[in-house]
Amino acid sequence: MSKSHAAHPDRLLPADPATRDIARRLLASVEDLPIISPHGHLDPTMFTTDEAFPNPTELLISPDHYLTRVLHSAGHSLADLGVGGHEVDPKAAWRIFCSNWHLYAGTATGYWVEQEFEHVFGIDPTRISAENADTIYDELNEILSRPDFRPRALAEEFNLEVLATTDDPLDDLAAHKQLRDDASFTTRVLPTFRPDAYTKMYKDGFAEGVEKLIQTAGGGKTGYAGYLEAMRNRRAYFIEAGATSADHGTHNTDSTPLSDAEAQRLLDKGMRGEATFEEALAFEANMTYRFAEMSQDDGLVMTLHPGVYRNHSASAFERFGADVGADIPFQLDYTRGLQPLLSAFGENPDFHFVMFTIDETVFSREIAPLAGYYPAAYAGAPWWFIDEIDAMNRFRQYTTGTTGFSRYSGFIDDTRAYCSIPVRHNTSRRVEAAYLARLVAEHRISEDRAAEAIVELIDASPRKVFKL
Amino acid sequence: MSKSHAAHPDRLLPADPATRDIARRLLASVEDLPIISPHGHLDPTMFTTDEAFPNPTELLISPDHYLTRVLHSAGHSLADLGVGGHEVDPKAAWRIFCSNWHLYAGTATGYWVEQEFEHVFGIDPTRISAENADTIYDELNEILSRPDFRPRALAEEFNLEVLATTDDPLDDLAAHKQLRDDASFTTRVLPTFRPDAYTKMYKDGFAEGVEKLIQTAGGGKTGYAGYLEAMRNRRAYFIEAGATSADHGTHNTDSTPLSDAEAQRLLDKGMRGEATFEEALAFEANMTYRFAEMSQDDGLVMTLHPGVYRNHSASAFERFGADVGADIPFQLDYTRGLQPLLSAFGENPDFHFVMFTIDETVFSREIAPLAGYYPAAYAGAPWWFIDEIDAMNRFRQYTTGTTGFSRYSGFIDDTRAYCSIPVRHNTSRRVEAAYLARLVAEHRISEDRAAEAIVELIDASPRKVFKL
Amino acid sequence: MSKSHAAHPDRLLPADPATRDIARRLLASVEDLPIISPHGHLDPTMFTTDEAFPNPTELLISPDHYLTRVLHSAGHSLADLGVGGHEVDPKAAWRIFCSNWHLYAGTATGYWVEQEFEHVFGIDPTRISAENADTIYDELNEILSRPDFRPRALAEEFNLEVLATTDDPLDDLAAHKQLRDDASFTTRVLPTFRPDAYTKMYKDGFAEGVEKLIQTAGGGKTGYAGYLEAMRNRRAYFIEAGATSADHGTHNTDSTPLSDAEAQRLLDKGMRGEATFEEALAFEANMTYRFAEMSQDDGLVMTLHPGVYRNHSASAFERFGADVGADIPFQLDYTRGLQPLLSAFGENPDFHFVMFTIDETVFSREIAPLAGYYPAAYAGAPWWFIDEIDAMNRFRQYTTGTTGFSRYSGFIDDTRAYCSIPVRHNTSRRVEAAYLARLVAEHRISEDRAAEAIVELIDASPRKVFKL
Repeated sequence: MSKSHAAHPDRLLPADPATRDIARRLLASVEDLPIISPHGHLDPTMFTTDEAFPNPTELLISPDHYLTRVLHSAGHSLADLGVGGHEVDPKAAWRIFCSNWHLYAGTATGYWVEQEFEHVFGIDPTRISAENADTIYDELNEILSRPDFRPRALAEEFNLEVLATTDDPLDDLAAHKQLRDDASFTTRVLPTFRPDAYTKMYKDGFAEGVEKLIQTAGGGKTGYAGYLEAMRNRRAYFIEAGATSADHGTHNTDSTPLSDAEAQRLLDKGMRGEATFEEALAFEANMTYRFAEMSQDDGLVMTLHPGVYRNHSASAFERFGADVGADIPFQLDYTRGLQPLLSAFGENPDFHFVMFTIDETVFSREIAPLAGYYPAAYAGAPWWFIDEIDAMNRFRQYTTGTTGFSRYSGFIDDTRAYCSIPVRHNTSRRVEAAYLARLVAEHRISEDRAAEAIVELIDASPRKVFKL
Repeated sequence: MSKSHAAHPDRLLPADPATRDIARRLLASVEDLPIISPHGHLDPTMFTTDEAFPNPTELLISPDHYLTRVLHSAGHSLADLGVGGHEVDPKAAWRIFCSNWHLYAGTATGYWVEQEFEHVFGIDPTRISAENADTIYDELNEILSRPDFRPRALAEEFNLEVLATTDDPLDDLAAHKQLRDDASFTTRVLPTFRPDAYTKMYKDGFAEGVEKLIQTAGGGKTGYAGYLEAMRNRRAYFIEAGATSADHGTHNTDSTPLSDAEAQRLLDKGMRGEATFEEALAFEANMTYRFAEMSQDDGLVMTLHPGVYRNHSASAFERFGADVGADIPFQLDYTRGLQPLLSAFGENPDFHFVMFTIDETVFSREIAPLAGYYPAAYAGAPWWFIDEIDAMNRFRQYTTGTTGFSRYSGFIDDTRAYCSIPVRHNTSRRVEAAYLARLVAEHRISEDRAAEAIVELIDASPRKVFKL
Repeated sequence: MSKSHAAHPDRLLPADPATRDIARRLLASVEDLPIISPHGHLDPTMFTTDEAFPNPTELLISPDHYLTRVLHSAGHSLADLGVGGHEVDPKAAWRIFCSNWHLYAGTATGYWVEQEFEHVFGIDPTRISAENADTIYDELNEILSRPDFRPRALAEEFNLEVLATTDDPLDDLAAHKQLRDDASFTTRVLPTFRPDAYTKMYKDGFAEGVEKLIQTAGGGKTGYAGYLEAMRNRRAYFIEAGATSADHGTHNTDSTPLSDAEAQRLLDKGMRGEATFEEALAFEANMTYRFAEMSQDDGLVMTLHPGVYRNHSASAFERFGADVGADIPFQLDYTRGLQPLLSAFGENPDFHFVMFTIDETVFSREIAPLAGYYPAAYAGAPWWFIDEIDAMNRFRQYTTGTTGFSRYSGFIDDTRAYCSIPVRHNTSRRVEAAYLARLVAEHRISEDRAAEAIVELIDASPRKVFKL
C-alpha cells in the first residue's frame, strides 16, 4: 500500500473522532465479506476463455462511459479514446487519460479508479500524470500479463461469490451453462433476462427482433399471443440456466395494462413501423405490467431502471452509437406510474419488485413510501449518476426513516468495469458504516443493532431480494 | 430511566463535542415548555369519558398506520394486527409486533415507540423481543390500568396545553364544549373544521353528505348558494366552539376560482354522480379558493395538506378500507397552483395560510419563497413521511436561508397515537437544537439569537400562526 | 473588527476541529484573490459619476428585494420601504429595518448584511436594534460621505477586477466605453447582452420594443429576418464594447427551433398582440435556440436563467411594479428542454453555455449529467433563492460526483447591492473551503489537489467560462 490518501484506512469514514471509531468497528465486520453483484454488464465469456486483458486502455478506458464522458466534456474526441470501436493507439489514449487525471478529483469515477490503482494494481494513484503516462502504461501492461490478473484469478482475489450478467432473451446462455458446470470456478455467474429490445417500438430493429423472437420461441403461436408465449418460454430457459431476475430499462414507470385486443392492435402497428411514440410507450407500459404478471408464476425477481433520455446528443449517436455517456436522466413519477402494477401484485410477498431511480427526488416522496408498504416492493440502491459517495449517503437519509433496513435491494455495481467491482463494493460498505455510525453517535440506534444492520444491508439483503 | 441508548440525554444532538455543548444549552431552554399541538387526529371523547386504554395492542398498534405498514411490508396481514376493525387476539398481534421489532430500527416510528417505552411507560425498549412479548404485554396492561395512565392524567403528565382535533363540519362538537366548560381539565381541546368529505366529488358518499349539509346548515338556501352558506354557518359554529383553524386535505394545490354559474353546474353534475375526475378537481380547487375567501371574514387559519394518492393498493382498500398505510405521496406544484389564492389573499397579514407538503422538493423552490414573501403564507412543519429526524433537519436547511425563523407553523404531530405526542414534540425540540447549534458553531448566528430562535420555533410560532 | 460572531475568522467553516484546520488552510489560499463578478445588476454610471451614495436606505434597503421581501412578509408595506420609487422618509424606513433585524437571523440576506456592517462599514452588527436605529443611520451617513466610500474607491478596496452589468440590446453602452478608456479606473466593467424584453410576447411593450429594435439595428431588413439581423448587429456592438456574454432570463428551458416561416408567423401574431401564451413560449424557445446559433459565430458565452414565476402577487405588481420580491421559482426540466440546443451545439468546446437553476432538484438529475458530458455545457453557480450557504454546499454535494471541479461557472453574485459584493464572494470562498476540507478529511482527495481545486473554482473557472 502506498502512503497516498487513497490508501488511508479511514477513507470515507466521518471526520468526527467518536463517530469514526464507531464506523471503523462497523466496517471491520463487513469489509471482508464476499461480493454479491446481482446486476451488471460484464461479458460471461471472459470467464470461459479466461484470457489476459489486452492492455490498460481497452480494459479501463474505452468501454467505460463513466470515464470517457469526463474527457469528452473537456473537449477530447471520443474517437481518440477508442469509444464505439474506433481504432486508436492505446498508448495515445492512455496519455490523454493521464494528462487529464486532475479532472476526476471529487468524482465517483475518480475515486473508483484511484482505488483500483491503489488496491487492485498496487500503483500509487498520486503518480498518475502526463509525465508518468507511459511508465504507468507499461507497468500496468506487465501486471495484466501476469496469471494472477486473469479474469478467473481476479474473481477469486475479489472474493466474488455471485455475479449476474445482463442478457438478450434469445441468448443461448452457453457461457453461463459452461461456467455452472465447471467445478473449478466457484463464482456463481447468473444470466439476467433483459427484454428491452423487444418492447420498445421506437428503437431500430424492433420488428425484426420481435419476428425472430416469436418464430424462435413462440411455441407455434403468432401475434401478441406468440409474443407473450415467447417471453414466457425464454424466461423459463433463463431460469433453467440459473437466472433469478429480469431487468427492465423502461422509458418511464407507466404500468397500465392493455386488453389483449388493444395490445395486438399496437403490436401490429409497431411491427409495421407505424406506431406513434405515445402508442409505443403504451405498449411498453403494458409489457411492464405483463412481466410482473409472469413473475407471479415463474418467480423471477423484477427490477426496473426507468428515466433515462438515451443518446441525448444526436451528433454523438451518429458517430459513436449508443452507450457513450450521452444518456441523461429526466424526472419521473413512480406513485402513479406503478399503481396498476403494485395494486395488482404488490401485496404478494413472494413477488420481488426492485425500483431503481436516478431521480433522487423520489427517494423520500415515492420510493420509500412504496417500499415501506408493499411486501413486494424494494428500494433499489442508487444507480449510475447517483452511485456516488454523497448520493449513497443521501439515499440512506431519505429512505431509512420510512423503510428501515429491510426494504433495500443491496448494493448494485451495474458495471462494465471489472476491476472496479471490489472498490465499488468497498465504497458501499464504507458509506453504510459511516451512515450507521452517525445514527449510533446520535443515540438513534444501539451499536449492537447497527452491527446487525450493516450485515443485513451488505450481505443479507441482496441474497434475500434476488433470491440467491 | 434505563441505560439504553434511548435514554441518553444527548440523543439526536450532534456528535461534534463543541456543537453538542451548544445544542445541550439550547435544548435545556425549551425541553420543558408546554406542548402545543394545533393539528392531530385524536378523539376528544377520550377526555370526556377518561376511560383506561383497553390494552397495548388497541392503544399502540391497530390504529397506527405508521406502525402497521412496516409489519405489512414484511408480509404480515393487516388483519392479524386488528386493522380496519378486524377482530384479533391482542396478545397474538402484540407478539407479531415484538417479533419484528428489529424492522423498526432507523425509522421515525421506531424512534418514537422506543421513546414511548423508555420515557412514557418506563420500560427499557432494548427488552422488546419475541421472547419478552408476553411479559411486556402484561407489564403494559398493568400500567394502562393505573389511574395515572388515564387520558386526562396523561395530558397533565405530558404538559399538554393545547390539543386540536380534526372534525366533520356536521359534528355537534359536544365533547369539545363539555371539555371547555370543565374547569377541572386544563388542556385546551379545540375542534378543527375539516370539510374534505364535502368537496371531493370523486369520493363515495359525496352527494348524500352534501345534501345533508345543505339541509342542515344551508339556512334555507339551495344548490351552490346553500352549500356555501352551510360552510359559512358551520365554520361559525366551530369558531363558537373554540376552533381557530380549518384544515384541507386536497388532492393538489390548485386554487383556481370558478364563477358561481360554473360552480353550480359542476356541483349539479357531482350530485348526480356524473362529474369527471377533472371536473371534480376543478370544483375542489374552487373550494380551496372559497375557503380562503371565507377566512378573510371569519378569521379561521387555513391549513393545506395536499399531494397524497389515497388507497394506492386497490386490494387493501377493499379489505381494510382507508387509512391503512397505503397512501403514497406524489409530486406537486405550489407556485402555480396557489397563485390565484395567494395573489388574491396573500397580502393580508391577518389571514394565516399554512402550506404543508410531503414533497420535499418544494421546500427551497416554492414553499420558502412563498412564505418569505406573502404576509399570509407560512411554511408548515414536515408532515407524515417526512416527520422524521433527518427530514426535519433538511426542512430547516432548505427553508431557513429564505424564510428565517418567523414564517414557520410550529411543530405538528398530526397523530392518532396519544402516547407518542410528548416524544414527537421532544424529537422536534432536539432537532431544532441540533440545527441551531450548527449555525452557532459556524458563527452564522450568535448563541443569544439562537436561544431566542428556539423559543420562537417551539412555542411562539404555533401560538401566533394558529391564533391561540 | 468587532468581537461579534460576524467577525469570527472561522465563520462558515466546519465545526469539527480537524476538518476546520484543513478548511482554514484552503481558505487562506484564496481569501485575498481579486473578485471576478461575471453577472450582476449594477448601473455602470455609478462608476462614471462616482457620486457618494445618497443615504443608507437608498443604498441598502429600497433597491434590494432580498431584503425588503423579509420585511414585507412580516406585514410591512413595501411603500414604507421606498420600493418601486415610492417616496419615503429614509430614516423611517431605516427604523423599520432595524426594528426587524431579528427576522434576518439564519437567512442568506441576514448573513450578508451582517458581514457588510462588520467588514465593509466597520459597524458591529450586534448593535442593530430599534433603539440604535437612528444612531447607526447617522454613523452610516457619515461613512457614506467619506471619499473612500465612493463607488470607485470601494471597487479598489473590494479588489474588484471584473464586473459585468446587464444591459438592454439598444443601450448605447456609453458608460462602459467611457470606463474602458479611463486608465485611472482599473476594474474591468463589461456589458452583458440581455435581450429578454424583445423575446417575450407576453410582456407589455413587446411590439413597440421589437419595432424599435428592427428599425434601429435591422440593417434595412424587416420582419423576422430584420429581427435576427438586429440581434446579430447589437451583439456585435456589445462585443465591440467589451461584452463576453449574453444572458437569457427565459420562462422555461425549451429550445425547440422553428422554421423561418413559422417564426415569422408567430412574430406577426406577437406584433399584433394576438399570440397565445403557448405561441409566445414557442417563439421564445426558438430564440433560445437562435441565440445559441449566433454564439457559434460570434463567440458570446450564453447563460440561461429560467424558471421564475414573475410578479406572482397581482396586487403587488399593480402597486409596485416588477422586481419587488414576488417572483417565485417553479419546477423545470432541463434534459428535454435543452436537447435541441445541446444536441446541435453542445459538442462545440468553443461554445460556452451556462445553465443556471433555482430548482435544486435538477442538480444531480440533469445539470451535472449534462455538464459532465457536453463540452459546451457548464453548471451555473446557485442563484437567487439558493445563493445561500447551505444551498451552495448542497450544489457541490449534488454535482461534484458527476462533474468534478472543471464544469463550473464560478461564483455569480447577481446583485443590485454593491456593498454586498465582497461579502458574497467571501461567503462563496468559505463554502468551497468547507466543502473541500470535508473531502480531504474523508481522504477522498489529497489536500494538495484540494488546494488546486479551490483556486480553480474561485478564480480559474469564471475566467475560463466567461472568456475573460
